[in-house]
Parts: sequence; structure tokens; C-alpha cells
Amino acid sequence: MTKTIVIKLGGAEGVQFDPICQDVAELVSQGERVVLVHGGSNEANLLGDAVGYPAKFISSPSGYTSRYTDAKTMEVFAMAVNGKINTFLVQSLQKVGVNAFGLCGLDGRLMQATRKESVKSIENGKIRLIRDDFTGKIDTVNTALLEGLFQLGLVPVVAPIAISQQSDALNVDADRAAAMIAGALQADVLMLLTAVPGILRNFPDPASLIAKVAYNEIDTVINLVEGRMKKKVLGAKEALDGGVKQVIIADGSTQNQPLVQALAGHGTMFCK
Amino acid sequence: MTKTIVIKLGGAEGVQFDPICQDVAELVSQGERVVLVHGGSNEANLLGDAVGYPAKFISSPSGYTSRYTDAKTMEVFAMAVNGKINTFLVQSLQKVGVNAFGLCGLDGRLMQATRKESVKSIENGKIRLIRDDFTGKIDTVNTALLEGLFQLGLVPVVAPIAISQQSDALNVDADRAAAMIAGALQADVLMLLTAVPGILRNFPDPASLIAKVAYNEIDTVINLVEGRMKKKVLGAKEALDGGVKQVIIADGSTQNQPLVQALAGHGTMFCK
Repeated sequence: MTKTIVIKLGGAEGVQFDPICQDVAELVSQGERVVLVHGGSNEANLLGDAVGYPAKFISSPSGYTSRYTDAKTMEVFAMAVNGKINTFLVQSLQKVGVNAFGLCGLDGRLMQATRKESVKSIENGKIRLIRDDFTGKIDTVNTALLEGLFQLGLVPVVAPIAISQQSDALNVDADRAAAMIAGALQADVLMLLTAVPGILRNFPDPASLIAKVAYNEIDTVINLVEGRMKKKVLGAKEALDGGVKQVIIADGSTQNQPLVQALAGHGTMFCK
Repeated sequence: MTKTIVIKLGGAEGVQFDPICQDVAELVSQGERVVLVHGGSNEANLLGDAVGYPAKFISSPSGYTSRYTDAKTMEVFAMAVNGKINTFLVQSLQKVGVNAFGLCGLDGRLMQATRKESVKSIENGKIRLIRDDFTGKIDTVNTALLEGLFQLGLVPVVAPIAISQQSDALNVDADRAAAMIAGALQADVLMLLTAVPGILRNFPDPASLIAKVAYNEIDTVINLVEGRMKKKVLGAKEALDGGVKQVIIADGSTQNQPLVQALAGHGTMFCK
């Protein structure tokens, strides 16, 4: 029976695109429905530096770090994620015979989000409110559009930009975008690729890999991990809440069949 | 009866996007099928300058000028046209209620092209052959894909990047891309917007506007005009050859209903 598999591959994390594309070709040829979601934070940082508008980051009181996205940063972000990562990921997939189709949340209103009216930023120990930030939290995914693309034989490749109620482009977290898409499709698997073998109890010791996390252990694990991994675990929880059967956090940096290995149980698996 | 209207709007020419988007909303609400094709050469030049990789141009022996697109320039071009122009044109259309959907020729192999194996460049009066140029000439348009997008209620917004037989991204001329798409769809109208009222017998005198060009006069007109306008007239001819009923070269820089005015006969009209 056809499985629906949503795969998030990295921006910042040094994930290798070519072995992933090879595995996507294999899964698609087996008849699986695949959606790819990518990041692009590293490219956005590099482009920001190159054009003289370097990235700025916000640390929230609850310990998350996010990009401060004013209008000019949103342009840089769109050029990096839609223009570079998405375009050339589609190219790489087409080169291995996958009929990839790039889009972002603006296109056909794929991902509708609520813009954060103000974002709390911790600066020198004080909380400051930022009001010109084009970031948001996804509310709904246009499942009919994805189904329509599947009907046309296309493999959607999604950039982490959503559309607000006022139709502004918003920077959204790619792990959580992948989680929302997986939930909307009631996916069999959500795979969150990173550059480590999964969640490590004693980072960076690979022997401390946690192979399985039960739903009621997730909150404990969120407090165990740091930085980007916090958002992945949060995404895993949101996906399970949304009806996804299985979430796997796995190593996307291996040259050796990263998706096949993850599906075979290498990584950290979450299920209800 | 539903008309199919393909509209090329400029990159370089200072075309105003907002009045065009308003008119697109009007046409779509009347039930017309609309495809937009955009350029982006000016943005690509600006981005090339900003990242320290300025655009280089090739003059062909037959008098056409085109962008020299090595691999790095292709990246810059993709960031400018897919990342910036396409993304924010889709945003502008969504803001006026048009369910726009951005794509380029890589996506679902919308536009297949043959890469130019070598490009002749006139340099200091001598002809040089350039072999690392990622430019091409479109052979086929995936009409089924466009029809599929129409079925989903989407308005395609197409960036001028095609896919080669080897699945490489290729920079293609946007006017001729629009002509090929219009031909593939057997469009009723192809509209090529520019920043002048149409073809001017005595450029830049607006009183010298040529209101109508018969098919057998096109070759004469090609020799009359210069620069970008040559490609537009060539595109007009290709479109008529491909079965498009009418081609209009019109002013896209007016604030006052540019598409409505063009359809009402303001501009230079070509038909067989």
C-alpha cells in the first residue's frame, strides 16, 4: 500500500542532498508519495553577508532562537530559500528522474500562517518587543493543492515561507512546516533529517543515541536537547498530535542511503 | 467564452506590477485563463553587483545581446528571478485575490530547452566561442501541467528558467518563453508589456506608434527596432507561427489599467 512520507532536509546542518535525492527516486519508483520540505538558514546567512545585510537573531524568553525577519531580510530569505535552495534541489531531483515541483506557502496559499504581532527578544537580560518581524506560525495546509500535485504525478518540494491572512510572505520554521504538512496529509512517516544520528542523551556521543521516544516522554526530551533540536522535537510532537503515525529524527549527512537507513530504524523514532 | 491570455511583464523595463496585478484580478474574475511570465534581468544585474559577481553580456554576430550565464551567474539569476521577482509577484497577486502559483521550467519540466553548446560572442570585432553558458532555446512546453494547474484554480506565474535534456537549469529569454507558452496553449492573446506605447517608427516619438503589423511585415519591423524590442518582435512572430491568434506589444508602465487598455487596442497588434 502506498505510504505518504514527508521529509525535512536541512539548511544549516550540512545535510548531503545527492544521496537523499537518490533515495527519493527509489521511494518514488516504489510508488510512495513523497513531499520534501527544506530549510535554508545557512544560505540565507551567507547571502545576507554577501549583500551587506547580515542576519540578526532573536533569543526568546523560552529559549528558542529565530531569525529576525524585517522586510529586507524577508527578501534575502526568499532569494536564498526559494531562489537558490529550492531551485537547485528541484534540479538535483530532476537529474535522478524525480518529477520534482518546487513551491512555497504563497503558491496557491499552500501554507497559511498567522503573523506574530510582536516577538519577544531577550537583549542584555531585558525583554524587548519587536513588531516588524515577518515570521509566523502555520495554521493550515492546503491539502487539496498537494493532492492535486500528486494527481499530476509531481513530487512537491516545499520552501519554508508561508502566507499571512494579509497575504504577506512569512518566514516559518521548516521543521514545524514539515510537521504541519505531514499532519495535514495524515502521513505515515515524518522524517526530520539532521547531521547527527538522532537524539543523543550525551551530545555529541553517538553511543548515547535514544532509539525510541514514547509520546509521554517528549516533554522530558525537549528539555534535554538544545538549539535546533528543540524545534525538531517540538515538530515531532505536533506531527503526532496531528495524526502522523511515526516521526523519525535521523542522520541526513551520511552518503549511504540516508532515507532507507532511517526507515529501517536508524535514528530516533517517535510514536504514540 | 473563456479566453486564454498570456502576459509577459518586464524585468528591465520599469513595468509597474501593481496596476497589472489589479487588471489580472479583473480578467480572472471574468473567467479568463491567465498565465503570467516575467523577466528579471534588472534584478539579476543588481544582485550580481551586490554579491560582487556583476553580469556580463554577449553580443551575437546577428545583433542580439544576451546574458553570459556561467554556473555562478545561473545561481544569481535563479535567486533574482525565482527568489525575488517570482515570490513577490505571487505575493502581490495574492494580495488582490488572485490565486497565483509561481513556477519555473524546472518544476514538473514545464519548459524543456536545448542548451546552446556554444555561443558566439563578438569581442573587439572578433568572434569568440563560449562553451560554459547555461542558456537555451525552449523546445517544448508541458501543456498538460499548465492545464492541471488551471483545473486546480491556479494562475501560473512563470520565471524564465527552463530545463535542459540533462536537467540543468537554463536561462531563457522571457519574451520568447511567453511566446512558446502562448503557442502551446493556443492562446487567444499574447501580451508583451514594455515601457513604451508599442513599436515606434521613430523611437522615442509616441506619435510614431505602429498600431498594426501584418504577418508579412514582421521581418521589416524586426530590422526597424533595436535591443530588447527585437526579441519581442521575434517572440510575436514565433507565437503567431505557433497558432496564437493575436499578439499585442503594449505599455506596461502606465498606472491606468495597462491590460484593459492593451486589450482595447492600445499598442502594436500583430495577427496573421
